Amino acid sequence: MNPRDFKRPIGVFDSGIGGLTVFKALSRHMPEESLIYFGDTAHVPYGSKSKEAVTRYSLAIARFLVSKEIKLLVVACNTSSALALPELKRRVKIPIVGVIDPGARAAAAATRRNKVAVIGTEATIASGVYIKALKAALPGVSARGIACPLFVPLVEEGWWDHHVTSEVARQYLKPLRGSGIDALILGCTHYPLLKKTLKGVMGPSIKLIDSAEQTALETEELLDSLRLRRKGGRGKNEFYVSDAPKRFLRIARLLGVKASKVRLHPFDA
Amino acid sequence: MNPRDFKRPIGVFDSGIGGLTVFKALSRHMPEESLIYFGDTAHVPYGSKSKEAVTRYSLAIARFLVSKEIKLLVVACNTSSALALPELKRRVKIPIVGVIDPGARAAAAATRRNKVAVIGTEATIASGVYIKALKAALPGVSARGIACPLFVPLVEEGWWDHHVTSEVARQYLKPLRGSGIDALILGCTHYPLLKKTLKGVMGPSIKLIDSAEQTALETEELLDSLRLRRKGGRGKNEFYVSDAPKRFLRIARLLGVKASKVRLHPFDA
Repeated sequence: MNPRDFKRPIGVFDSGIGGLTVFKALSRHMPEESLIYFGDTAHVPYGSKSKEAVTRYSLAIARFLVSKEIKLLVVACNTSSALALPELKRRVKIPIVGVIDPGARAAAAATRRNKVAVIGTEATIASGVYIKALKAALPGVSARGIACPLFVPLVEEGWWDHHVTSEVARQYLKPLRGSGIDALILGCTHYPLLKKTLKGVMGPSIKLIDSAEQTALETEELLDSLRLRRKGGRGKNEFYVSDAPKRFLRIARLLGVKASKVRLHPFDA
Repeated sequence: MNPRDFKRPIGVFDSGIGGLTVFKALSRHMPEESLIYFGDTAHVPYGSKSKEAVTRYSLAIARFLVSKEIKLLVVACNTSSALALPELKRRVKIPIVGVIDPGARAAAAATRRNKVAVIGTEATIASGVYIKALKAALPGVSARGIACPLFVPLVEEGWWDHHVTSEVARQYLKPLRGSGIDALILGCTHYPLLKKTLKGVMGPSIKLIDSAEQTALETEELLDSLRLRRKGGRGKNEFYVSDAPKRFLRIARLLGVKASKVRLHPFDA
């Protein structure tokens, strides 16, 4: 196969279902592209695991997707983007897009008061990469991060708009009230499903920054600049998981993703 | 080594920290025995994973512990006991104790009204093994199971006695109120940490059945009958995890487990 063949698919991966929010944005922006999605449901969640483990899993998935001849890889998982992106870029020789820099750039463009907060998993927040990316995108910005470990299980339970989720959000976000921040980065691909709850807690004027949109936009621009965009037609999508395909299929459909078949691909790492 | 050497250690494993409640009961009942604990923190939680994955992980851990020359294996994880115990017993040639039969026997002994409920992870409840074990222990018992997927993340977050946890419990246990059950099996080794919250929701007269105690008792009896009990002295304990040993150590200490060192042993499965 010609390595510059623009008809090759785009690879997308996440620890589980969260990356489907990025998948949907990519699909909406570039319906002509074929996408291969990988959900690492055997190791989900990544947010409480070590950098070494997340890097091992991410590399194994990237290699599997490269074996499927993808032209570009989207790391649709904030924890993997935070912990494994440098190592992925060193070891995998195709263009790679993470979700953190796009999210930070979108927040930098949205804030009027130069006060931004980011919420994410324990590992993402502890890594400090969002604060670094924000300071690069908007020097002088005031930025803080808050870990919200229960948000992923609450989303996985389907309690997207539930009084318990609101109460958990009130507890986690207490330090942000009265702090003057006007933009909140949803630093985990599960969190866009909690937008309504988060608006309810933070007030209607807060700008919720969903990196899925910006990631899709930057992926599109990168493909254009590399002359790797597919010119027309309609893409075909494939889905792989490392465990429990039926459970994945059920939740993917709840999220409005048209998946007809999910293949099982367990891997050692 | 003599295969009947009674000085050999007992192996204990769980998907993460939950099995430490069983570890503590074993330690209290048999302080002279040496214990090797394995927490599969690279794959935690098991409760939303498939039977195939949980069986693979459990077999790999059992083999590792057998390589450490254990004399008996305690499967201190309800999900693994529910999904993988028959396969473990087929493939691993040492005595094995799970937590489900002991829990069911303790509940059968405790109920006065012959009405029992069991709470556990999605996978444990869906397997139906508790209901089967209860009916074997107490023919004619009326028994039902309720999955409580958020309890493990709430315990891992340290929200053991928290108003959000009470609210989640109220929601999950709603179908049990007014049902006349008088014994509730805590069918997940994390749940004993929620005893106060569960009493608050179910009322003070409910009997909470913690299989840790009964499992320790039955392990003791089995070792006696096999003439494998250590006769005196003080046991030495070892701890292994498949990821993030520092995090494990921090939580183990919160639970009152005296661990001085936790070794990292990642594995492929």
